[in-house]
Amino acid sequence: MGKPLILVTNDDGIFAGGIRELISIAKELGEVVVMAPDAPQSATGHAITIRQPLRFEPAKEFPDIEAYKCSGTPVDCVKIARQVLLKDRKVDLCVSGINHGSNAAVNILYSGTMSAAMEASIEGINSIGFSLLDFSHDADFSHCRKYVKAIMEHVLKNGMENGNLLNVNIPKLSTEEIKGMKICRQANARWVERFEQKLDPVGQPYYWLAGDFVDFDEREDTDIKALKANYISIVPAMHDLTNQAAIPDLKKMEAINVAS
Amino acid sequence: MGKPLILVTNDDGIFAGGIRELISIAKELGEVVVMAPDAPQSATGHAITIRQPLRFEPAKEFPDIEAYKCSGTPVDCVKIARQVLLKDRKVDLCVSGINHGSNAAVNILYSGTMSAAMEASIEGINSIGFSLLDFSHDADFSHCRKYVKAIMEHVLKNGMENGNLLNVNIPKLSTEEIKGMKICRQANARWVERFEQKLDPVGQPYYWLAGDFVDFDEREDTDIKALKANYISIVPAMHDLTNQAAIPDLKKMEAINVAS
Repeated sequence: MGKPLILVTNDDGIFAGGIRELISIAKELGEVVVMAPDAPQSATGHAITIRQPLRFEPAKEFPDIEAYKCSGTPVDCVKIARQVLLKDRKVDLCVSGINHGSNAAVNILYSGTMSAAMEASIEGINSIGFSLLDFSHDADFSHCRKYVKAIMEHVLKNGMENGNLLNVNIPKLSTEEIKGMKICRQANARWVERFEQKLDPVGQPYYWLAGDFVDFDEREDTDIKALKANYISIVPAMHDLTNQAAIPDLKKMEAINVAS
Repeated sequence: MGKPLILVTNDDGIFAGGIRELISIAKELGEVVVMAPDAPQSATGHAITIRQPLRFEPAKEFPDIEAYKCSGTPVDCVKIARQVLLKDRKVDLCVSGINHGSNAAVNILYSGTMSAAMEASIEGINSIGFSLLDFSHDADFSHCRKYVKAIMEHVLKNGMENGNLLNVNIPKLSTEEIKGMKICRQANARWVERFEQKLDPVGQPYYWLAGDFVDFDEREDTDIKALKANYISIVPAMHDLTNQAAIPDLKKMEAINVAS
C-alpha cells in the first residue's frame, strides 16, 4: 500500500503562512498535491466560477511537491484538482487551511476554507478544515502543529463513521496552554453587524461591513464554549441542510389547494 | 395591525424577470422593500464583501415601492437592508428569487438566492427561497404565481415551527400540470463535473466548468423525486451544519495525547 494522497487547499491563498504550515505537516503523512487560490479569497463561501474560465499554473514556491495556484475560488480549486489533475486517482484526504482566523459557529457558511473542505466531502472525500483564532498575516502556526498532525493521522488511520467532514478551530495559545480536543456542536453564535457609512471623494455614500461576534448559545457542548475553555473544537459537519424537525408542522401545506 | 413587512432579494439581479414576478406577488401581501444585486450574482454562495465598500441606490424600475440595487452579493444585500434601511423595523418575511434555474439538492450551497434567504434566517427572520426549473433569461414565471403566493400567505399567517427557512423549487410546467406541493428532504444529488479545456489566443490553456447533475438518492421523499413527479418541492433547511450522527465515533479523538 502506497502513501495516502492528500489534497491541500485554503482560502487565504497560496502565499499564506497557514497553508505553508499545513503543507509541511501533510508531507510527513503522505503524497501531497496542492491547488490553492492565487490571491486571497476569504469569505467567498461556496461560490463557484461559472461565467469565466479558470487557469492554474505551477506554484514555484513549493518546488519539491506538486503544487498549483489557481485563478478561482476555494471550491473551484477542489473541483479542478479533482477533475483535471487527479481524475483517475483516489484522494484519501482533503485538508483546507490553516485559516488565518476563526471558522467556528456560523462562520462555516462564510468561509472559503470550510466551503473547500465541504466541496471535497460532497464528492465523498474525507475532509478537514483547520482554522487558527488569529487573523494576523504573520500568525504563528507552529504551536498547533502537533494537534493538526494528530487529527490528520487519526482520520487517515480510522476514517470517519456517519460523515466525512470536520471543522477544526484552534485557540491562539501555546501547545502547552491548549488543554486538548473536544468534539462539539456548532454554536448558535453569529455576527451582529453594523455598517460604517462614509462619503467618497465626490460626496457619494459608501458602506463598509463591520460587526461583533456574539454567542447566543447557552449549551455547554458548543465549539465557542470549547475554544473559550482553551480546547481545540472539532465539529463534524454535513452538507445535507434538511431540517427534519420542521417537517411535521409543514406537512399541512401539502393540503393547500391553489385552485380555490 | 399593519401590513407585514416583506424583504425581497435574489441572485440574478434587479433586472431579472424572476424578481419582478416575486415583487408583484409580495405587493399583494404586504409592504415591500427590495434590495437586490445590481448585476447577476449566480453561484456566489454565501460570499460576503469584506475588502471593498458597498453601495446601493434607488432602483427606478420599481417607482411605486422602496427598491434598491446594491453593488454586493445576495448575502450583502440582506445584511445592508437589515442594518441600514430597516434597522429599527421588524421584517416579517424575507423572500428570495424567483431564481432562474433549480436550487434543489446540493445546489442550496452554491446558490446566492438560497444563501440570501439563509442569511435572513440566521438573523431570525422567516425566509423562503423560490426557484423555477428554467434557466432561460425569459423564463415564464406566471404559472407558478398562485403557488408562490399561497406559500408566502401560509408562512405569514402560520409562521414556522422548529425552523425558519424553506427551499422551494417549482417544475417548469403549467399551473394545471403541477400536481401540488410536497414537503421533502434534500436529495443526495450533485454535479458530476468535467472541465472543458481550450487554448486562449496566445496558446495558454484555460478550463471552463461543465457537468451533469446526477441523483444518487433512492429514497422516495427527496426534492428531486418530488420535482420529477411534477410536484413543487419544499425542503425545510437550517444553518446548523452539525452532523450529530458522527459525534459518538469521533469522541475517541478526545483521548489523543499529542505529548506522547
